[in-house]
Amino acid sequence: MALFWDCLMALLAAFGLVCIAWPPILWEKIEYYHRAKHKRNEGKTMELNEALNKLDALQKKSYAYGAGLSALYLDGDTVAPSDTEEGRSLAVSVLAGEWHERFTSPETGELLDFLAAHKEELDQVRRRQVEELKRDYDKDRRIPAEEYMEFQRLTSEANAVWKRAKAGNDFALFLPYLEKIVAFNRKFAGYYDPDKAPYDALLDEYERGTSMAFYDPFFAALRERIVPLIRAVGEKEQPDDSFLRRRYPVEAQRKFSDYLMEVMGLDRRHVGIGETEHPFTDSFNNKDVRITTHYYENDVASSMYSVIHEGGHAKYDLGVADELQYTRLAGGVSMGLHESQSRFYENLIGRSLPFIRAIFPRMREFFPEQLADVTPEMFWRAVNKAQPSLIRTEADELTYPLHVMVRYEIEKRLIDGTLEAKDVPETWNRLYKEYLGVDVPDDTHGCLQDSHWAGGSLGYFPTYALGSAYGAQMLKNMEHDIDVWGPVGRGDLSQVTAWLKEKVHRFGGLLEPADVVKNACGTFDPTIYTDYLTRKYSELYHL
Amino acid sequence: MALFWDCLMALLAAFGLVCIAWPPILWEKIEYYHRAKHKRNEGKTMELNEALNKLDALQKKSYAYGAGLSALYLDGDTVAPSDTEEGRSLAVSVLAGEWHERFTSPETGELLDFLAAHKEELDQVRRRQVEELKRDYDKDRRIPAEEYMEFQRLTSEANAVWKRAKAGNDFALFLPYLEKIVAFNRKFAGYYDPDKAPYDALLDEYERGTSMAFYDPFFAALRERIVPLIRAVGEKEQPDDSFLRRRYPVEAQRKFSDYLMEVMGLDRRHVGIGETEHPFTDSFNNKDVRITTHYYENDVASSMYSVIHEGGHAKYDLGVADELQYTRLAGGVSMGLHESQSRFYENLIGRSLPFIRAIFPRMREFFPEQLADVTPEMFWRAVNKAQPSLIRTEADELTYPLHVMVRYEIEKRLIDGTLEAKDVPETWNRLYKEYLGVDVPDDTHGCLQDSHWAGGSLGYFPTYALGSAYGAQMLKNMEHDIDVWGPVGRGDLSQVTAWLKEKVHRFGGLLEPADVVKNACGTFDPTIYTDYLTRKYSELYHL
Repeated sequence: MALFWDCLMALLAAFGLVCIAWPPILWEKIEYYHRAKHKRNEGKTMELNEALNKLDALQKKSYAYGAGLSALYLDGDTVAPSDTEEGRSLAVSVLAGEWHERFTSPETGELLDFLAAHKEELDQVRRRQVEELKRDYDKDRRIPAEEYMEFQRLTSEANAVWKRAKAGNDFALFLPYLEKIVAFNRKFAGYYDPDKAPYDALLDEYERGTSMAFYDPFFAALRERIVPLIRAVGEKEQPDDSFLRRRYPVEAQRKFSDYLMEVMGLDRRHVGIGETEHPFTDSFNNKDVRITTHYYENDVASSMYSVIHEGGHAKYDLGVADELQYTRLAGGVSMGLHESQSRFYENLIGRSLPFIRAIFPRMREFFPEQLADVTPEMFWRAVNKAQPSLIRTEADELTYPLHVMVRYEIEKRLIDGTLEAKDVPETWNRLYKEYLGVDVPDDTHGCLQDSHWAGGSLGYFPTYALGSAYGAQMLKNMEHDIDVWGPVGRGDLSQVTAWLKEKVHRFGGLLEPADVVKNACGTFDPTIYTDYLTRKYSELYHL
Repeated sequence: MALFWDCLMALLAAFGLVCIAWPPILWEKIEYYHRAKHKRNEGKTMELNEALNKLDALQKKSYAYGAGLSALYLDGDTVAPSDTEEGRSLAVSVLAGEWHERFTSPETGELLDFLAAHKEELDQVRRRQVEELKRDYDKDRRIPAEEYMEFQRLTSEANAVWKRAKAGNDFALFLPYLEKIVAFNRKFAGYYDPDKAPYDALLDEYERGTSMAFYDPFFAALRERIVPLIRAVGEKEQPDDSFLRRRYPVEAQRKFSDYLMEVMGLDRRHVGIGETEHPFTDSFNNKDVRITTHYYENDVASSMYSVIHEGGHAKYDLGVADELQYTRLAGGVSMGLHESQSRFYENLIGRSLPFIRAIFPRMREFFPEQLADVTPEMFWRAVNKAQPSLIRTEADELTYPLHVMVRYEIEKRLIDGTLEAKDVPETWNRLYKEYLGVDVPDDTHGCLQDSHWAGGSLGYFPTYALGSAYGAQMLKNMEHDIDVWGPVGRGDLSQVTAWLKEKVHRFGGLLEPADVVKNACGTFDPTIYTDYLTRKYSELYHL
């Protein structure tokens, strides 16, 4: 363990530099941290120091199991041969079970209780680690190891089956997995918080502090403003976006992705890009993040905005302070905040006219023939074309929240038992007609389009709409603090990133999600989001 | 655990089919196995059944940790961004330590002791599992967990550093790692077997039953026959092989690799191919094997024979019987036997005239201009050109054993302390001059060329020469049993593979290496290998 300890000391030494830039809001806490740090080897008992060593070792183990599992998942989703799920599922399930067993052992409980009892002697970072780990511990203790392993195994298999089901428009193939996943989620919700309605427990799990009581009026507010806006837009002439569907060779798109990552300041020595059916971001640590995309030869915007979106997730994880690495506090603090970052880069920056103007000359070099007769303004209008459609990940910024609403409604009812998994396609199609006015032709373009349920996640989707709302508030504050559009118009995102890093990224899990939101957004207010949408689409469509 | 148990039962059920084809030599043992199997739930005490369940769980855990580590290594060697070693090293070291701690716990010892005491009640498979695990356990108990973890971490880092050192011809960069790796190996040798000379203990570790007393006369015998043969060949006119170094676009080479894998009968649903500096094979299980290659635009033979070589390793791991999967007996039994399979496909088949004649028409479709003026005979002579050279992996079949000898001599002296790591380049260059008559221009083409030492392996190289000798004996027996060259001449390797599967692959680790060698080769006799080389090169060079 000597090596680990040296390594941690080096990380802590680096902290001295990092915190100079921390904002006044946290200064007091940081000062406290420094005092505590200097006290570490003086005032503390042998016993406490030993417990802190154990705390570090525990967190490094958590990181290591997580990294092993991530590597297995990443491999399975990117380069693994098609018929290799069985062995991978077994490995994933056993490894997850091993970690679960270790983490939920009485020794962990004793360690965390001991440290909690000494919390006044701990610095801010350690105290928060102990609080979060204790919370995880209490929750995980309530989940029987066998169920946990079975769920890991189930979702690993379900993911593979979902791929085949989606490819073959075969919902029946996926149905038994969905049924089991719903049943597990319902059961797990009881373990998370037996006093809450099951879906509330799940919502809180993905975004601490949220519930149906929070989301219902949020979505109602969005619907109230967005549905009329969509109607108004629908009465206007649509821009021509046919050039987006010219033939854009995949090889050129790959090079374009490299360029986009460069513009975003994603250091390729630390960020990899792969290709998967459904794009995602997988972060090992703040020096090793992978994003994926999917290339469609006849749709240049699809991968372009996947790369920017996943790149936004990557920026968050890369921006977390070094001293939080390999601890419970590494990575983003919540799904909603993570999604705020991905959608910030994708929509607020990536689909803005200044950004498109900035990158267009280089973009034309990758696609000279395809874009010969296209202006930046035409491209901007095309990638912001607002029109009810079928696929969430390719939906425009305006109709997007309604895609999320469909999923929210279905999850709510699946979990409270008023909807059976077998009836998901019918309900899906009906809600798409009701909210978006579109007819779903098949399940491939309907309820099989997303990987989230196959991955075991129910309660995740709503955070997507929340993230967009956070993002609009961050932009407003950012515009108040710095010149956003001057540099972006020159293709320079460094100041945008620096602002987000200072307000959001570097904290990792050190603060509560609500505190990060307050720090970056001020008081949460969805009308800032709907105002933003109204302004943007009024300009685009001359409303 | 219920799921695992069902899964194991399914695997055992499959066994009934597999063993019908088993050869008479094992029939008695198999009969015994079946009787034992049917007795399983009758005669055995509850306690024994419980212990067998624990044995299965233990082996599945071993598989799972191994798969997690493999996924991390594979990722690190193929798609991971360049500067991501730190976090991966940490994860690898912690996970390896976790497994080491689990496996070497007193509970494992008690379980294995209990099962060993009941070995008469166990079938052949279980008895062998217990024997092998007990052997591992006793050995691993002697290795302190901290040293084991430190070694895992060291080799993970060393591998990354070696890549940079090789790229930059910077032996000094790699030297501190090599020094530590040698020291670790010397120490570990004492843990393996304190009664043996350290290098003997290492040799036995990679190929059970071997020692310097075995290898010294083996290499002497090779040298005695091969050195004059090389000299005789050197006096003859060399074939023109310049066409091998025309420009072969990497994209076409990739497609050619796909074709070669098809010819070898490697099912792409279960076998992936990646690209790495140094080609290797990484097997998760008999349904999931990955090989890698390295493409050089001006050298079509390099990747071609890497693919066939690694494909041979893959065939071995894919051919192991299903009922041995996820147990101690999955995968090949020894390095020498593994290398016998890779080199069998690479040299005995892949560099034979019938094989080249068979694939040449298709090969010309991938490289129409490059091979327009080349005949199969010309190609055969070119890829068998025997000429002392610098790079082991690209050496011809005849000079190859001398490359291995250089490494054997150096390892022997590094481990017995008569050579210091800092003096490796000088000794390397001197031995290359002495054995092969070539001048080594730099360490990139000298002692930094292979990844093995960086990976922590000393004592591995000699098995390469052993594998070639085994292979020659297998070919002789195979030619006695079946028509080898008729089908190969039609591009059909299925009968070759079937023979090897029957004689070698399917046994996995069920038999001792010496028993597999006896089964496939008869009595070990290096003159069969040197006779084969003499015959082949006499024909090629009209000696």
